[in-house]
Amino acid sequence: MGNNIIKPSILSGFMELLPDEQRVFDDMKRVLEEVFASYGFYGLDTPVLERSSVLLAKGGGETEKQVYRFDRGDTDITMRYDLTVPLARYVAMHYSDLSFPFKRYQIGKVYRGERSQKGRFREFYQCDIDIIGDGSLGIINEAECPSVMSSALRALGIEEFCIRLNNRKILNGLFEIYGVGERSMEVMREIDKYEKIGRDNVIAGIKELGVSEENANALLDFVTFDGSDAEVFAKLNTLAGKNETLDNGVSDLKQVTEIMKGFGCQEKNFKVDLSIARGLDYYTGTVFETCYLPDPSIGSICSGGRYDDLAGYFIDRPLPGVGMSIGLTRLFYILNEKNLLNKSVSAPADALVLPMTDDIAGAAKIASDLRNEGVSVQLYGEQKKFKKKMEYANKLSIPYVVIIGEDEIKAGKVSLKDMVKGEQDMYAIPEAADIIRSGKSERGTEKCVISGN
Amino acid sequence: MGNNIIKPSILSGFMELLPDEQRVFDDMKRVLEEVFASYGFYGLDTPVLERSSVLLAKGGGETEKQVYRFDRGDTDITMRYDLTVPLARYVAMHYSDLSFPFKRYQIGKVYRGERSQKGRFREFYQCDIDIIGDGSLGIINEAECPSVMSSALRALGIEEFCIRLNNRKILNGLFEIYGVGERSMEVMREIDKYEKIGRDNVIAGIKELGVSEENANALLDFVTFDGSDAEVFAKLNTLAGKNETLDNGVSDLKQVTEIMKGFGCQEKNFKVDLSIARGLDYYTGTVFETCYLPDPSIGSICSGGRYDDLAGYFIDRPLPGVGMSIGLTRLFYILNEKNLLNKSVSAPADALVLPMTDDIAGAAKIASDLRNEGVSVQLYGEQKKFKKKMEYANKLSIPYVVIIGEDEIKAGKVSLKDMVKGEQDMYAIPEAADIIRSGKSERGTEKCVISGN
Repeated sequence: MGNNIIKPSILSGFMELLPDEQRVFDDMKRVLEEVFASYGFYGLDTPVLERSSVLLAKGGGETEKQVYRFDRGDTDITMRYDLTVPLARYVAMHYSDLSFPFKRYQIGKVYRGERSQKGRFREFYQCDIDIIGDGSLGIINEAECPSVMSSALRALGIEEFCIRLNNRKILNGLFEIYGVGERSMEVMREIDKYEKIGRDNVIAGIKELGVSEENANALLDFVTFDGSDAEVFAKLNTLAGKNETLDNGVSDLKQVTEIMKGFGCQEKNFKVDLSIARGLDYYTGTVFETCYLPDPSIGSICSGGRYDDLAGYFIDRPLPGVGMSIGLTRLFYILNEKNLLNKSVSAPADALVLPMTDDIAGAAKIASDLRNEGVSVQLYGEQKKFKKKMEYANKLSIPYVVIIGEDEIKAGKVSLKDMVKGEQDMYAIPEAADIIRSGKSERGTEKCVISGN
Repeated sequence: MGNNIIKPSILSGFMELLPDEQRVFDDMKRVLEEVFASYGFYGLDTPVLERSSVLLAKGGGETEKQVYRFDRGDTDITMRYDLTVPLARYVAMHYSDLSFPFKRYQIGKVYRGERSQKGRFREFYQCDIDIIGDGSLGIINEAECPSVMSSALRALGIEEFCIRLNNRKILNGLFEIYGVGERSMEVMREIDKYEKIGRDNVIAGIKELGVSEENANALLDFVTFDGSDAEVFAKLNTLAGKNETLDNGVSDLKQVTEIMKGFGCQEKNFKVDLSIARGLDYYTGTVFETCYLPDPSIGSICSGGRYDDLAGYFIDRPLPGVGMSIGLTRLFYILNEKNLLNKSVSAPADALVLPMTDDIAGAAKIASDLRNEGVSVQLYGEQKKFKKKMEYANKLSIPYVVIIGEDEIKAGKVSLKDMVKGEQDMYAIPEAADIIRSGKSERGTEKCVISGN
């Protein structure tokens, strides 16, 4: 010891939390799991390592540069960089064992070796929900996914958000009507710059792609239209009957918003926004982005959409689906930076048992008895001064201390100290458990994220 | 699609579960988390990737050959192969932010590229609990760890197990008394072969290491002594006062068994066994191995012990600790092979809502209402024949189906079908929720592992 000490450090771009923060993170993860499970989604777990030929089947692009990839013997291995490709591989591989529509969530770590920057991590938790159909998939699922995510965000304590919805068929219909033709991807990219560079520059950019100024203006009028859902649909109605794709998209989007209300999704938490596109080649129906209203600059906190071909690389069968995803590590990081995490839930136990005599087995028994009453109990068995023991309880924010000295043993009771109120009294164990439990259920109503955010 | 299909497969030696098995696995993980948390252990999460210089600080041995290691730019990276080295690094790195004794659990994937064989996985979940002291750590902790693990195994539904306890000081004391001297490691390795090669061959082996036949016999008499704890302690008592290390070890082991009773650990679930050694250089006090009684041949299902120097490679300060570990992936695999997993808890939801009319938003609302009553509900929104829908419920083992047709909508009720009993009747939503909930609480008493194993 001493001479050859290696500096303990972690790789840059990796998040590691102290215990009290980890507690909040784990609570958030648990809340998400509970919400997803309450909608009957299966939890899945796939390997972190997969064959590069599988994970990079799609190939090309930024992804391939960012992945962690290495050889092991003859095998070319890649660490998963999202949960969608593994899902596609899973559904194709286990197709005959699954029932469709297949509803699954997965919360797992993914890896991207991007350049390290504040708030971006190389290892991060992705929380995905997807519903996969076999050949076909009803429109209801395009309403269920955002409803699940809306429930999930609210269960976390995040109330000020807006899921923005659009339908790719509406965009495609508008592009057809306004003569954008095959340059739709490039036009969309121009439109995406709207907030940054302003309308005139976008118009100029679209004109360069071969669209007339009149059409560019008309298109932008739709895509950037700002109004209530009813107003957006009224405006879209002015084009009714002109283009089948557009009509279908409008009909789908109307249905989705109606069903979302049925799911109990609050109207302030979702809104039609014709400017949402989410990359043109994968999505085919409803698309979603979620704005965090107190600070829209952080970008979408939950995104996704409807796609028609999940696993074409792996199976010769159309598997349409709809999915949404939360980048949990990033969301946690941002909320933590803004001091919006509720760290009052960070104590590792409801109560700390402090034996004051040498009868440690007796203290262990009392701790067990309390646990059997449904209380989580940490036992502090070190021989330190009383003050040190109380300091420990304070540091860990444990709300109740159970003191077991000679008087207590004689009386067959425990002394219970409320660390917040400072009150202390002697109780029988079931009484003490009652008090601790009711204190816990009061605290239990608090959410992971501080509300009113 | 179609022409360039890549066969969907995973790497050999990686476990991937179908949804119903995953459900049981996740339940096991959750039960373990709940038990660890009920003892006030913090949950931790460390990166899967770390600097090779950190993870391989100890160096040498089989480990280094098995790890997944690769370069990324200038960085030499290794995937964690256990949770102990990351814990040592974590405690050293965050030393000043932690309170001691520091109690943590971690359930996470670790990676070892060993030769692939049945029941051994290259990616597997390790479930560790450790209690780390700063400079010193009370003996109570050596009783708490096995008590926590005993609670955990019983909470899973595993009742037929025996945690075998020994104390390294007892072994060291016996080695000193019987003149084993510095060859203790080799002698221990010979003793480990006892069941395989028999007493005579072990004696011969020990003699070759320079121990007299008489001493070898006397040593073996102790180490292989088979009796109740009281009998073992009586036998050890014949050596009382001869060797301080031995006396300390006996005193510690007695205390540990007494405190374990205090913790409520059932006497059939633990037993002193002087043959347990667990590698000689790391552990310094109590050591544990857990025998699965219905099939001891599967090896220890939960092991660990007391150590004096957790993090000497990373910090110039003695951090003694005690820890135990369950290899969850392997345990799950074995129980699954033996058909001992309770797959009756595998349904993704308590109830399946089947809309029989076009009013999908109305069905979504009823599903929401049921969820608000604390029932997990999957909504089946596909337009299939009734028979197909019921087949889906059956395949997923969902215990209740909620049918919403025109009659039900008119009556403001739902039809609830009990899929097990086959009974069907109309109820108001709160009544239906009551029935589903009480069915769930009946099923809820079942454990992940089939008891009586």
